[in-house]
Amino acid sequence: MRVANLNGRLVLLDGDRALDVATTSSGAFGPDPQTAYVSWESFAEWARGADFAQAVPFDAAQLGPPVPAPSQVIAIGLNYREHAIESNLAIPDAPAVFSKFASCLTGPVGDIPLVPGNVDWEAELVVVIGRSGRGISVADAWSHVAGFTIGQDISERVLQTSGPAPQFGLAKSFESFGPTGPAVVTVDELDDPDDLAIGSSLDGEVMQDSRTSELIFPVAELVSRLSHVLQLRGGDLIFTGTPSGVGMGRTPPRFARAGQELRTRIEGLGEMRHRFVAVDSATRV
Amino acid sequence: MRVANLNGRLVLLDGDRALDVATTSSGAFGPDPQTAYVSWESFAEWARGADFAQAVPFDAAQLGPPVPAPSQVIAIGLNYREHAIESNLAIPDAPAVFSKFASCLTGPVGDIPLVPGNVDWEAELVVVIGRSGRGISVADAWSHVAGFTIGQDISERVLQTSGPAPQFGLAKSFESFGPTGPAVVTVDELDDPDDLAIGSSLDGEVMQDSRTSELIFPVAELVSRLSHVLQLRGGDLIFTGTPSGVGMGRTPPRFARAGQELRTRIEGLGEMRHRFVAVDSATRV
Repeated sequence: MRVANLNGRLVLLDGDRALDVATTSSGAFGPDPQTAYVSWESFAEWARGADFAQAVPFDAAQLGPPVPAPSQVIAIGLNYREHAIESNLAIPDAPAVFSKFASCLTGPVGDIPLVPGNVDWEAELVVVIGRSGRGISVADAWSHVAGFTIGQDISERVLQTSGPAPQFGLAKSFESFGPTGPAVVTVDELDDPDDLAIGSSLDGEVMQDSRTSELIFPVAELVSRLSHVLQLRGGDLIFTGTPSGVGMGRTPPRFARAGQELRTRIEGLGEMRHRFVAVDSATRV
Repeated sequence: MRVANLNGRLVLLDGDRALDVATTSSGAFGPDPQTAYVSWESFAEWARGADFAQAVPFDAAQLGPPVPAPSQVIAIGLNYREHAIESNLAIPDAPAVFSKFASCLTGPVGDIPLVPGNVDWEAELVVVIGRSGRGISVADAWSHVAGFTIGQDISERVLQTSGPAPQFGLAKSFESFGPTGPAVVTVDELDDPDDLAIGSSLDGEVMQDSRTSELIFPVAELVSRLSHVLQLRGGDLIFTGTPSGVGMGRTPPRFARAGQELRTRIEGLGEMRHRFVAVDSATRV
């Protein structure tokens, strides 16, 4: 099933049609897209039997972030070997964890402001937690996953690499630096949820082209390891890391320019389209 | 005014008595403590005129985290000069920002599990955002602050300093590693909100003893700088950094041991009391 946020309302998608959940669930589920994940098991049970007779065509430009208000946005650095190498950093022997701040989350279509500095792209598989838990085993991990969506971990590299410690969280959380979408796709829709083509392009030129089977710490292991520190909660997001091909790692480095279109795709999850736009206001920290 | 979480319900405190907000506001505000900050201005207006006739005595051990579900938990590292020196790190020329993950938040009285490694203490002034905003000027910053509470940025130092990049967020987010409370105190209750005594003690021995006037980036400047990257939202928390005297910075280093009592105090905000307790389960990441 495909769960999305259409104009701020929780919907199920079926091809090019959307079914409004609040109006067709007899009040069982509210219109807020976040509610699907806070009570994921009962929602998923209802959604599996949903009647799409009342579904209507929709405009993809009206899709918002499918999970708009996570209690935690966990992000993993250096989780593809070739990206660690292009970043001149060691291959981690445990997940390198930081956070994107939730106010950066936006939907799968729209503008990304070119704040001062060097703005870069990072296509990522995003795990959406369904059932909450702590101390989850690798064997049980998938039962805590609601599904996947596409994410872009947009990053301003000057701020990121300044100061006495890396500013991962801040430099990756400017307004609209966390595009997600178009929908949360449950893993039963995917032939092999551990092996999906992932990539990004800039004005049609391929920048990143890899497979999620290259993840150093794959999905079930991430869920398990993180849950031994954190309580994972329904609607939490895990940005699982980006493959090689980011602008910072190129020779010479390349960064986004105003007017360029960034496309981000993951096999089975669809595609996101964003335009980099110039901003007037001076942004400082 | 003092706003707190008593057994999961939003209350106003008056000395040793608590007033339940939901039952005395004629339904204007719900019982969830987070609602006070999501609609801070209307809540504060109501609270200023609240009638404490129905307030009743309460047990401080029943206080939970005053702001239990922030959309963002922003934390500042190295924000006191002497602490940056004891950490062998440079004095930052911009705030060093990371996140504590929200699932670590607990209340002002309780146990803190001694996970494997070196568990350390960090007394911190915590800013609670009231009015949401972006691009806030230093002059306007205080109008976006709901109030202050006490925080402990409990930290496991082995994980924190391992891997290719510092694991600040994860190593500071084990279960109960984010005690806060006892209440959110509005700044009008404080003689000088930029100069409060702050400290911690372990079994009665003073560990930290400083003043918030020593902050490198004081409250209004933090709010302004952060808001030029993030949207600050009602109920967001800013852990503002810890003064010197943490265990890691001592010669020789000292860390928490099972059975020890940690007291954390800030002038005008009260005190928190926690007990370090041994845990059986192996915690790994």
